[in-house]
Amino acid sequence: MGSSRKTEKIPAQSAITRDPFPKSKKIFVDGKIHDIKVAMREVETEDTISEGLEAEKFRIPLYDTSGPYTDPGADIDVHKGLPSLRSTWIKERGDVLELPDFSSAFARKRLERTNGITFGNTRKPLRAAPSRNVTQMHYAKRGVITPEMEYIAIRENQRIDELRGNYYGQLCSYHEGIDFDARIQPSHITPEFVREEVAAGRAIIPNNINHPESEPMIIGRNFLVKINANIGNSAVSSSIEEEVEKAVWACRWGADTIMDLSTGDNIHETREWIIRNSPVPIGTVPIYQALEKANGKPEDLTWEMYRDTLIEQAEQGVDYFTIHAGVLLRYIPLTANRVTGIVSRGGSIMAKWCLAHHKESFLYTEFEEICEIMKAYDIAFSLGDGLRPGSIADANDAAQFAELDTLGELTQIAWKHDVQVMIEGPGHIPMQMIRENMTRQLEACGEAPFYTLGPLTTDIAPGYDHITSAIGAAMIGWYGTAMLCYVTPKEHLGLPNKKDVKDGVITYKIAAHAADLAKGHPTAQLRDNVLSKARFDFRWNDQFNLSLDPDTARDFHDETLPAEGAKVAHFCSMCGPKFCSMKITQDIRKYAQEHGLSETDAVRKGLDSKAREFAEKGKEIYVEQTAVSLDSSEGHG
Amino acid sequence: MGSSRKTEKIPAQSAITRDPFPKSKKIFVDGKIHDIKVAMREVETEDTISEGLEAEKFRIPLYDTSGPYTDPGADIDVHKGLPSLRSTWIKERGDVLELPDFSSAFARKRLERTNGITFGNTRKPLRAAPSRNVTQMHYAKRGVITPEMEYIAIRENQRIDELRGNYYGQLCSYHEGIDFDARIQPSHITPEFVREEVAAGRAIIPNNINHPESEPMIIGRNFLVKINANIGNSAVSSSIEEEVEKAVWACRWGADTIMDLSTGDNIHETREWIIRNSPVPIGTVPIYQALEKANGKPEDLTWEMYRDTLIEQAEQGVDYFTIHAGVLLRYIPLTANRVTGIVSRGGSIMAKWCLAHHKESFLYTEFEEICEIMKAYDIAFSLGDGLRPGSIADANDAAQFAELDTLGELTQIAWKHDVQVMIEGPGHIPMQMIRENMTRQLEACGEAPFYTLGPLTTDIAPGYDHITSAIGAAMIGWYGTAMLCYVTPKEHLGLPNKKDVKDGVITYKIAAHAADLAKGHPTAQLRDNVLSKARFDFRWNDQFNLSLDPDTARDFHDETLPAEGAKVAHFCSMCGPKFCSMKITQDIRKYAQEHGLSETDAVRKGLDSKAREFAEKGKEIYVEQTAVSLDSSEGHG
Repeated sequence: MGSSRKTEKIPAQSAITRDPFPKSKKIFVDGKIHDIKVAMREVETEDTISEGLEAEKFRIPLYDTSGPYTDPGADIDVHKGLPSLRSTWIKERGDVLELPDFSSAFARKRLERTNGITFGNTRKPLRAAPSRNVTQMHYAKRGVITPEMEYIAIRENQRIDELRGNYYGQLCSYHEGIDFDARIQPSHITPEFVREEVAAGRAIIPNNINHPESEPMIIGRNFLVKINANIGNSAVSSSIEEEVEKAVWACRWGADTIMDLSTGDNIHETREWIIRNSPVPIGTVPIYQALEKANGKPEDLTWEMYRDTLIEQAEQGVDYFTIHAGVLLRYIPLTANRVTGIVSRGGSIMAKWCLAHHKESFLYTEFEEICEIMKAYDIAFSLGDGLRPGSIADANDAAQFAELDTLGELTQIAWKHDVQVMIEGPGHIPMQMIRENMTRQLEACGEAPFYTLGPLTTDIAPGYDHITSAIGAAMIGWYGTAMLCYVTPKEHLGLPNKKDVKDGVITYKIAAHAADLAKGHPTAQLRDNVLSKARFDFRWNDQFNLSLDPDTARDFHDETLPAEGAKVAHFCSMCGPKFCSMKITQDIRKYAQEHGLSETDAVRKGLDSKAREFAEKGKEIYVEQTAVSLDSSEGHG
Repeated sequence: MGSSRKTEKIPAQSAITRDPFPKSKKIFVDGKIHDIKVAMREVETEDTISEGLEAEKFRIPLYDTSGPYTDPGADIDVHKGLPSLRSTWIKERGDVLELPDFSSAFARKRLERTNGITFGNTRKPLRAAPSRNVTQMHYAKRGVITPEMEYIAIRENQRIDELRGNYYGQLCSYHEGIDFDARIQPSHITPEFVREEVAAGRAIIPNNINHPESEPMIIGRNFLVKINANIGNSAVSSSIEEEVEKAVWACRWGADTIMDLSTGDNIHETREWIIRNSPVPIGTVPIYQALEKANGKPEDLTWEMYRDTLIEQAEQGVDYFTIHAGVLLRYIPLTANRVTGIVSRGGSIMAKWCLAHHKESFLYTEFEEICEIMKAYDIAFSLGDGLRPGSIADANDAAQFAELDTLGELTQIAWKHDVQVMIEGPGHIPMQMIRENMTRQLEACGEAPFYTLGPLTTDIAPGYDHITSAIGAAMIGWYGTAMLCYVTPKEHLGLPNKKDVKDGVITYKIAAHAADLAKGHPTAQLRDNVLSKARFDFRWNDQFNLSLDPDTARDFHDETLPAEGAKVAHFCSMCGPKFCSMKITQDIRKYAQEHGLSETDAVRKGLDSKAREFAEKGKEIYVEQTAVSLDSSEGHG
């Protein structure tokens, strides 16, 4: 491995974003089975006077991925890492050993270095005790509801059932979706349901026993759609400080998991800093680091090198590994006539190895051995789609679907070991070909969760691929994809900076939320309803505070109307005071009220009579100037 | 009307963007029936060496809405307006009169003003001769193929048939779409097909005889999906100069039509400046200006006031009018229990008028009279959805669909007059409810083109509503919407500035193009294929130049690798040199070639034998390390 070409920078405390969200606080909901406290964010709205009810400040709970960073009460030292939320849970199960030292020779060598960039870690790695299997799937299959599972059930429900009983309860109503598993309504997500889904392989809980800092979360199509943010430096760009801040920043805006795709120098150290400070699961593609160890020559990679890398990363705490074990020799010629060949980094590396050695890759031949490693730490497979299409022209081709079938076969092997699995998906896919991906994935892979990159629905907009892909991501999320891998505006052009990371995360939160609405997830629409009500009531601050990005919403509004008074004004600069439709609607409602028209009963009564009249007249054009009287509560003529 | 609260600014020549696109030039394709020259943009790619073929510069024709502004050879004076492309065509039909003066009393009064902001116009307005009907629908129904229709046929085809015969022909291949009218493939769009679609009401050609500067374009679901950009000042913000530049700027990035939604001071003058300088059709909502004349009080609006406004704008050259004639009295109570009431400005104004007067609006009662005006200038109806939902909670409700049925009835009346019609659609709609909108619109409105705002698929992302809505727009475009009204990042928050306009336009070009791909429009995928090939070949400049926004693509790339040499480098900063999958794929292909493996025949042959082997083995896991030899053109074992 080459030495640093630049002076590496470790994170300064001040470089990590710690601002709380406006009018928000962290709340902690107690478990009923286990002694756990489930973190959420609660947004307090402005006074809302409602007739017949006392004015009250309403508090909307939101699913929150930002970890302790947004809690001003949390004591965080980025040089020490986050508190170990799950340590007790893990140790109380009595099935792990604390190792005296790291098992990987490479890791031990790196820890001996004194170049000032090593994370100050005295932590000893954990491993399953001999013959024990520490995966959540293993517990689930044995009927055990772990603290992780209960945590997830409470977290996913977002207290929706409590809210139904109170003043804002009417706003909890929602449209029924389609493409949702009809067996269960997520508002009734129970710890037992979480267990069942994990046992069946339909959902995974990625949480390595060596990453006890992470808050439990679940990836499965009967839960909220999740998003992943890729970070990581390349040989050309970035530092440890930047990457740690990118990770915290991505979680702040909604990343449910982070993949550290570093390929440059010091990737062992970069990863350690990220994991110790990450409240969400971390994924990696171990072949990247293995390739560094092979001096960048794919053909020089060996199983031993790769195996040591898996164990090195397993003991650091990586929660899921992307493994491109489905790139088989016989599939490579299928890519020969493609417009863009093989575009997965891991896929192209393995293809080159396979051709150079004239045999199947060690990822495939040693797959059972890899399962043994995974289950000793509870690392989930993210079976990589090394042959995913990199252009619209190559979508849904023979190479892509051949590999998918192999990933399905590997899923069955992993499940035999009780190792959790998700399946990676494309890529570049035009809209009309998206559903086929979801259908075939569910069939081929036994309903293991799908984890897709986009898909991008056109190739013609470099610089805007967060948008070309959000279209596809929302659709495939609706169809059943469990986690969406974000794409930033820099895709195809360069390494994303902090702004790009935020743009990518917010864009993908939109796609995931749109999918949750379309599936009919009952917790999803409350936020839309409460925000829209705030919009209609001209509670500008509530509109900002409830939005995915309060800072941008506020800045955009203030660009033309910066005065504090404008935050209660009944218009904005878009239409000006005379043309605000919402203001006019309120005038209409006020007019109706002043004329004695109650908005519920009388209007409905009047409506019914008009509707009958309309039905009687049939569909003929209604040219007569019929007077509709709204000035009595008796209805109108 | 109030006087200007600020000093109005008319456009300086230098304020209008005139830069050509990189490596692009305007080309003009001759008509075969008429003496017309159809403008397109042609992008020249870098040398592409292809074995057995001579190196050649390839030229990709693109549909171009930017007008003469991007042609360095065009002589443009923003104070004189664009050349009158269609004047001869209009006059040669012999069915119009040149009026001695403007028919609108208001227009005449405004022209007498000498405040320095009036456009220096000596143009006399045109009107149909007595008893004549000058609409394209009227000609179409009589079997006449107008120059406008031939222009559109050539423009829509983008020379795809010529390209198929040459070197890049292989790249013209495309995936078949779904949801496309199977009667005709757009690569065979003929002038006669255009005529048929217009005669049937399935498509419209908005081009007022008083806007001869505009380049003919068509809105219909069997053509390329179009996008509209809203501009216009409000009482709070903006100037004439800004609005004219916004219009030119929006066309530059791809707006197919512009709506001038000005509601502030000097809207007559602002509109004149915009129309005279616009190469695309202009739409307005005349009730906005009528309301200014009624001093902002909806209840004081009269039919006479509105009628004069229609004629004022008709003689200026507005190409389509949004008219909210479907807001009937009996529908208003249906909005009473909505979360966000009535959110259409026009809809709320008319609702207030209806309630105040206790009768149906003059838009509805005088609809036939309005048709008489429309056909005298060839203005198309855009029947407004005054009761569209403004939040997810209100989507697809009784008010929305009741109005849609009325719009369908009004469509039949307009068609009786041979007046062209499109129908405006929502709004805020979650994904699973989008298709119902398209289905009901086609049924209720006799297949008149649908023109939708978004739809936004969630309410929770103010500041990013270009994205929440691009998801819905791409989907409904695929399902059959003919034109998408853009939404900018400032939606719900303020008046869009130039940056917002560009963001909105590019985002909607993405949605429209994704829809064209999904429908299976045969011209669409060529651009994706050529750009992706450039990407795979590391022709960075071609990748930028073929993209929707070359400036942003180049800037993003150069942010980390600014050196000119990086434009031919076989990597970017995202992965760095060792990890570029495309580079590795090229190495693989080179390896195959060096070992005598031709990429087409031999690979396929080898593939076939492997596929047979695979089939014979069935789906059992393939653990044996089978060697695949690629070192002879005979295939492999």
